[in-house]
Amino acid sequence: MTAPPTILKLGGSVLTEKTDTPTPKLAAIRRCAREIASTISRTSPVGAGGPLIIIHGAGSFGHPQAKEHRTPAGFTNFGIIEIHRAVASLNDLVIEALVKNGVPAASLHPFGCLVAENGRIAEMETDQIGMMLARGIVPVLHGDVVMDRETGASIVSGDQLATYLAVRFKAARVGLGTAVDGVLADGAVIPLITRANFESVRSHVQGSEGTDVTGGMLGKVLELLAIEIDINSYIFNASKEDVIAGFLAGDEPGTRVAQG
Amino acid sequence: MTAPPTILKLGGSVLTEKTDTPTPKLAAIRRCAREIASTISRTSPVGAGGPLIIIHGAGSFGHPQAKEHRTPAGFTNFGIIEIHRAVASLNDLVIEALVKNGVPAASLHPFGCLVAENGRIAEMETDQIGMMLARGIVPVLHGDVVMDRETGASIVSGDQLATYLAVRFKAARVGLGTAVDGVLADGAVIPLITRANFESVRSHVQGSEGTDVTGGMLGKVLELLAIEIDINSYIFNASKEDVIAGFLAGDEPGTRVAQG
Repeated sequence: MTAPPTILKLGGSVLTEKTDTPTPKLAAIRRCAREIASTISRTSPVGAGGPLIIIHGAGSFGHPQAKEHRTPAGFTNFGIIEIHRAVASLNDLVIEALVKNGVPAASLHPFGCLVAENGRIAEMETDQIGMMLARGIVPVLHGDVVMDRETGASIVSGDQLATYLAVRFKAARVGLGTAVDGVLADGAVIPLITRANFESVRSHVQGSEGTDVTGGMLGKVLELLAIEIDINSYIFNASKEDVIAGFLAGDEPGTRVAQG
Repeated sequence: MTAPPTILKLGGSVLTEKTDTPTPKLAAIRRCAREIASTISRTSPVGAGGPLIIIHGAGSFGHPQAKEHRTPAGFTNFGIIEIHRAVASLNDLVIEALVKNGVPAASLHPFGCLVAENGRIAEMETDQIGMMLARGIVPVLHGDVVMDRETGASIVSGDQLATYLAVRFKAARVGLGTAVDGVLADGAVIPLITRANFESVRSHVQGSEGTDVTGGMLGKVLELLAIEIDINSYIFNASKEDVIAGFLAGDEPGTRVAQG
């Protein structure tokens, strides 16, 4: 039995410019890769924090395309193909940066391994992920367009993937790296959100700015609170140097979200 | 219920030069894409021959890498990652050519959607493929390295994928496009191979030339004969102009392989 994995999600706003066409933040992608690499030894099958799953958002490699191709009848075939190819090309950049820095990172496209129902993951091949984790490969998934039993095709966000895999693999910790310091109330980071205090902080939780078709900050909190097992999750600023490395080393940055 | 799909496999020798480093035959890739496009109407959800699954081999984007990274203890993690990235980059070229020619082609990497056992497909997420076929998307798979319950990781050939999906989707026809005219006996194409005549022709069946870690021509015939349901399969020359288009239009090129 493999140790429980850590799940690290890097938001599209961390890795891409919020533009209408795909524009990577190459320096940020490389910095994230270096911080992740700093916690993973090339010679050890698992990193300092044990097995790791990385998920990234789509940012300008997915959101503008999804908006453009969304019609009342759903996505067209060529729309599905264009959305998927765009976000897969961001995934290529992430994988390249990770591998160059010595992280044994392997691409896993949700389009290829899961089926959704009304935008929620209905079934997903995950045995290959477990086998990768057991031998120290770091699977790298991303928000993606996927086939959907109800709507034909839908968008599954990186946030949803993070919580789905957290339950599937009983994750040790989940980290959602965003471009802000955490969940903010009047400019200050809320240190802890639980089901008990959620209603009292809800009005302070804003959606994330820019082009985001997948729910923004409120969506992230709701995804994390809905996790059906007890997992400590953190929403933090992955655009600030060393916060990812700190999280992977055991720090508790930003806002902690816990079920209990 | 979707009509039974046609499965077209394009050999690595058709799409790539048999060199030690990844070298695409770009003109051949474009010609194959044009021939496939000629049978698919952009406005119709399904092509002339009904739903289509395309599978391609790895050629110099996979075989040299697999040889290089095969050790007595199996593939290393970085070996797995390099093999997969190489063949995925060939897949990118194939998808690009198909989409440019108006084929709604979408990439599906076996690394991401299946698990093998001793080199044979043990489980595979295929519902997404059925949903794509139903709406006229053409899934494009390829020979790939995959996680393996017994050996850690193994190579699943495009030929194996073709026969696996032929059974899964009760294919109308299977075509294996190679760089030769069919299964040859003393330079002449054997018109029909069945389980009944296989032993008498077996000694004439040669492996394919060059770097092929996945079984050559004999492997193809054995894969096709082992199909557990009655499906007409054809091994033909996809390097010759118009043979792919003819096969997709109903021609019976090369060697027919039938179970009965």
